[in-house]
Amino acid sequence: MALVKKPVTGMKDILPAEMEIRDYVMGVIKDTYRAFGFTPIETPAVESIANLSNKQGGENEKLIFKILKRGEKLKLAEAKEEIDLVDGGLRYDLTVPLVRYYSNNANDLPNPFKALQIGSVWRADRPQKGRYRQFTQCDIDILGEASNLAEKELILATTTTLDKLGFKNFQIKINDRALLKAMVAYSGFEEAQYDEVFIILDKMDKIGLEGVEKDLLENGYAAESVNKYLDLYKGLADAKDNAAALSFLKEKLGDFVDEEKIAGLEEIIEAVDETKTAKFDLVFDATLVRGMSYYTGTIYEIYMPEFGAACGGGGRYDNMVGNFTGNNVPACGFSIGFERIIMLLMDNGFKVPGKGEKIAYLMEKKMPKNKVNAIMKMAQEERANGKQILVAQANKNKKFQKEQLMAQGYTEFVDFYADSDI
Amino acid sequence: MALVKKPVTGMKDILPAEMEIRDYVMGVIKDTYRAFGFTPIETPAVESIANLSNKQGGENEKLIFKILKRGEKLKLAEAKEEIDLVDGGLRYDLTVPLVRYYSNNANDLPNPFKALQIGSVWRADRPQKGRYRQFTQCDIDILGEASNLAEKELILATTTTLDKLGFKNFQIKINDRALLKAMVAYSGFEEAQYDEVFIILDKMDKIGLEGVEKDLLENGYAAESVNKYLDLYKGLADAKDNAAALSFLKEKLGDFVDEEKIAGLEEIIEAVDETKTAKFDLVFDATLVRGMSYYTGTIYEIYMPEFGAACGGGGRYDNMVGNFTGNNVPACGFSIGFERIIMLLMDNGFKVPGKGEKIAYLMEKKMPKNKVNAIMKMAQEERANGKQILVAQANKNKKFQKEQLMAQGYTEFVDFYADSDI
Repeated sequence: MALVKKPVTGMKDILPAEMEIRDYVMGVIKDTYRAFGFTPIETPAVESIANLSNKQGGENEKLIFKILKRGEKLKLAEAKEEIDLVDGGLRYDLTVPLVRYYSNNANDLPNPFKALQIGSVWRADRPQKGRYRQFTQCDIDILGEASNLAEKELILATTTTLDKLGFKNFQIKINDRALLKAMVAYSGFEEAQYDEVFIILDKMDKIGLEGVEKDLLENGYAAESVNKYLDLYKGLADAKDNAAALSFLKEKLGDFVDEEKIAGLEEIIEAVDETKTAKFDLVFDATLVRGMSYYTGTIYEIYMPEFGAACGGGGRYDNMVGNFTGNNVPACGFSIGFERIIMLLMDNGFKVPGKGEKIAYLMEKKMPKNKVNAIMKMAQEERANGKQILVAQANKNKKFQKEQLMAQGYTEFVDFYADSDI
Repeated sequence: MALVKKPVTGMKDILPAEMEIRDYVMGVIKDTYRAFGFTPIETPAVESIANLSNKQGGENEKLIFKILKRGEKLKLAEAKEEIDLVDGGLRYDLTVPLVRYYSNNANDLPNPFKALQIGSVWRADRPQKGRYRQFTQCDIDILGEASNLAEKELILATTTTLDKLGFKNFQIKINDRALLKAMVAYSGFEEAQYDEVFIILDKMDKIGLEGVEKDLLENGYAAESVNKYLDLYKGLADAKDNAAALSFLKEKLGDFVDEEKIAGLEEIIEAVDETKTAKFDLVFDATLVRGMSYYTGTIYEIYMPEFGAACGGGGRYDNMVGNFTGNNVPACGFSIGFERIIMLLMDNGFKVPGKGEKIAYLMEKKMPKNKVNAIMKMAQEERANGKQILVAQANKNKKFQKEQLMAQGYTEFVDFYADSDI
């Protein structure tokens, strides 16, 4: 088979300029999350196929890169369907591996456990601009904390990180799945209809109130329910702030909602507003849905005006550990949209703050041996002083060589000639 | 299918204590290599199956985790053999992906190009203690540099890194495949026999001169050749230093060896000895083989007495880019045995140098809301001052909680009670 120069379909080579930004962003993320007491962990890229096919992954389960069994276990002639051929797959997110990791290692971990996981995930999605089949996710999670201290710390840690990366005036939207459900129940929808209603509601930011109303009616829902439902959202649109919106819902929904859920949201918003150091607004948004079915309570999302879409999000998922161990453990996470952040920074011409000077020593070819050694010795001394020193032979087209190096961030050049005094 | 708590066979979850050391070592490696002008790059974990099966990977090609074709491309009923089912695989090293990357992107890269690549690789090896099916490799390579400036810089950069990680009194063994070949040619072996002779020679450190002699004779090689060959190694064993060993070979091998090859080794050794800042010996070792068939010139290996085995190595491979592009490009690399280094550090009870204090704020449950916010505000201020602050609720067994946290490096605890003045 002929060798292939290109990366496999949908995956990419990361060139030095992007890599520099990625390394910098990763450093900021790690340092900031560490300051909040999060501990880095790592899980294998490969998970058993059973863990990736348990219906918690939603649509992502259709996009798994599956791994062929090996050796005697591969029985090609007897294989009837795909599942007979595979025993593992590349993880499509970091949540399934985290929950497996926690289930496997809880005895060796502090309680509550605050985990930071940065790693590649793989999805065999249709390739499109800015979307790749291998990409980096960056998740923080708190396991074993039932109180909303978890939500508060996750939101503070994430927003402090975004602030350190230079993002200002973004929003964190927050909601609770209990509220979402209370609103449809109050409006008279049946439980079997909830998920479909939420899928339509999720389009509110694109199609507006009227679009949602039209879609619901076209899908055959009772006009009475649709009107009642839309009236809630109209009422919320008139609320002047978070407190007004939440008290409007509390009054309207009455017994349909557990008052503690509303009090919980109020408490999170108040705590974050009082303690945040970053510049952002935490906004209650009753249209926020978040797709994954595993969420059980609070949900939230980063909204960046310059991106016009979510740049990360998360929520509470108290039932996932129980799927592995039989005992539920409270769990709550927040994922930063690492690739979107890199894209935004690159689009804005972001320059990584200097890490010491980058200097290139360019030696004429045919330099006497003793002079080469003297030049290398100088380089060694400068490196020990924290400078970045490239020692290279000058190319024939030295001007072009210097241009290439300037593009890599080299700001100073020292030319050495065979007849130089060194 | 039931969920599986364990990682897949042969792969591992990395617990916080090891993760801390890994992150630290990775930081030292990146900073040191950057000071030498190496540029981080990243390639996808998945490579096309053609690139992984081109016979350059030796035994590793038998250990590939293969990836099933997806969608319409998977024709299970028509598939006759494995290759009909797969289109990619997980990379088994970082060299094949680097060479593909360079072939694909050379126009956008400076010349010479000094690359640093740290990443996971996968091999479906038989699981055994300390050896995993997913592990991290850490390679530096210089592409486009034909002179031995490449070897010198690679050896200096690698040894400076090892020194910064606290390793002292290790050895770098160096040889040249041209010398290896000259020695067998001089002894009268035939070219078709070279590789098998090298496999036996490679066992010298385990079975000694007599063992090698016995093995060669048992494999049916002419006693005359074997004696002549072994006499060379006996002569080298008597040489008091690198210079004596190399001049012994120059004299013995005569026209069988290109004098420039010997002069090249002498030059590398002299330059490194004169410019090194780390404590180590660069030793010419005519028994050094290095398995991979793609090496074309100099080869070298890190030898750590406390490990009793190689902790990394590399060499020159001038023909690999040509396999992709038709035009050869000089190339030379050095790989640090990342996992072995982590294992050595952990076995020695290595402690990561402090990154600022780790302090845990433990709050009594049922803390009034306004006091929780005040405590979080204090934490925010301390984090802004570079401290690591964990805010958590005190567990019922607070003593055990503190022990767990001490194991995670927390040295200070602040207890907050509901009736505390805050």
